Amino acid sequence: MHFSILTIFPDFFVSPLQEGIVRKAVQEDKVKIAVHNIRDFAVDRHRVTDDRPFGGGEGMVMKPEPLAACLQAVNRTEQPDRVVLLSPKGVRFTQQQAERLTAYRHLLLVCGRYEGVDERFREKYVDEELSLGDYILTGGELAALVVLDAVCRLLPGVLGCEESATKDSFSRGLLKHGQYTRPRLFEGVSVPEVLLSGDHAAIERFRFLESVKLTMERRPELLMGMSFSPDEEKLLQREGLRSRIDAITRGNREKSHTA
Amino acid sequence: MHFSILTIFPDFFVSPLQEGIVRKAVQEDKVKIAVHNIRDFAVDRHRVTDDRPFGGGEGMVMKPEPLAACLQAVNRTEQPDRVVLLSPKGVRFTQQQAERLTAYRHLLLVCGRYEGVDERFREKYVDEELSLGDYILTGGELAALVVLDAVCRLLPGVLGCEESATKDSFSRGLLKHGQYTRPRLFEGVSVPEVLLSGDHAAIERFRFLESVKLTMERRPELLMGMSFSPDEEKLLQREGLRSRIDAITRGNREKSHTA
Repeated sequence: MHFSILTIFPDFFVSPLQEGIVRKAVQEDKVKIAVHNIRDFAVDRHRVTDDRPFGGGEGMVMKPEPLAACLQAVNRTEQPDRVVLLSPKGVRFTQQQAERLTAYRHLLLVCGRYEGVDERFREKYVDEELSLGDYILTGGELAALVVLDAVCRLLPGVLGCEESATKDSFSRGLLKHGQYTRPRLFEGVSVPEVLLSGDHAAIERFRFLESVKLTMERRPELLMGMSFSPDEEKLLQREGLRSRIDAITRGNREKSHTA
Repeated sequence: MHFSILTIFPDFFVSPLQEGIVRKAVQEDKVKIAVHNIRDFAVDRHRVTDDRPFGGGEGMVMKPEPLAACLQAVNRTEQPDRVVLLSPKGVRFTQQQAERLTAYRHLLLVCGRYEGVDERFREKYVDEELSLGDYILTGGELAALVVLDAVCRLLPGVLGCEESATKDSFSRGLLKHGQYTRPRLFEGVSVPEVLLSGDHAAIERFRFLESVKLTMERRPELLMGMSFSPDEEKLLQREGLRSRIDAITRGNREKSHTA
């Protein structure tokens, strides 16, 4: 899979691309990454890539021509089949979105800055706009790296089996239970007995309940409409969690009502 | 404000910290950032920082002792007042969270890897766990950079006035309208007439309606429970948007019901 990144801060990407999974994927020829400097395609003497917004307001908007010229230059040699703009206005990026993006041969990621990019560039050249979450970053560079990382690790052969388990952390929709490793005793605290028992069914039950409790505490909205197997339901009943889950989902429903 | 980052990939941070707003904040002494290598605190010959999980399962878990030793070394010299672990199990990071974190003097960011960190380290040393969103990254390094960037740009004097407008993109809860800059005509497409009119009230109405339409299309859930001024309500009525918003919020409510 190919990735092209359009940015006014190409140097930003130097060290992150030389570490971990992404570096390995590049070395093993599973992924190709090219970083392009939008500023190289600015036509004026000062290589300006942004300007003030029409209609007033603070902030600077990225000019359409350098963006379009940079993208066209990439098009001539590399033919990306999907152009993604990173911006806080986008559709929310999720694990499902990462999985969907693995289907493309060549992803072009445009890093927005400041108050955004000129709308006419977006309308004509951008296939989709993605946002990491409801927070403001100084630019799309970090967002592009997040998308790159999340997509890369899903490509066949990129993750070793040591890491592959993390693939399904969100597939069930529950937050993952706590994990323990050696030593058995750390600062006076022991690993939970059940994890040392070798009783796989008991371990699975323990982890399931830990996941449910953590999700109730931190992300109760994820429990809305979640379905459990008959065995899991019995476990939730026995631990007194079923009524608490019902209360949470009822509470959320009422919040939507009065909202 | 001080930031300490605990990671097994310290080199990852080299180039991102030398660009843009963060570099400027460091140069102007508004922010201090120190990156610490957890591996330096592993005690065995191979400097191992991870191990297999008790109770079985794929993936590797970060060992508690090197993490604790690294954190204690930072504690001895720098006294952080908040320890944040980056992991997909955390509470969702938002703009409000970024604002809240600006109140700390010294934030310590722990980058989790693989299947997570040993639960005993988390319980004893971590004040809070944050997640960027519902997607899996190969590690917490990118998440730490996102938190650093989002918090830094809110600190007094870090953003110039050119960029400061982006601060309130999420304050209203609507996605931001499209922006236009020079040239007036780009590839045959003109800037919307109203933005050139100089009629500030008309521009404000235009932008408000654009924001509402964009939010309806991409993030309808943000409209749940949103309140509008009487003038805005009149505008929504006139443009036929009020009934569409009602339909969206009713639809969401029904989804919660049947869920």
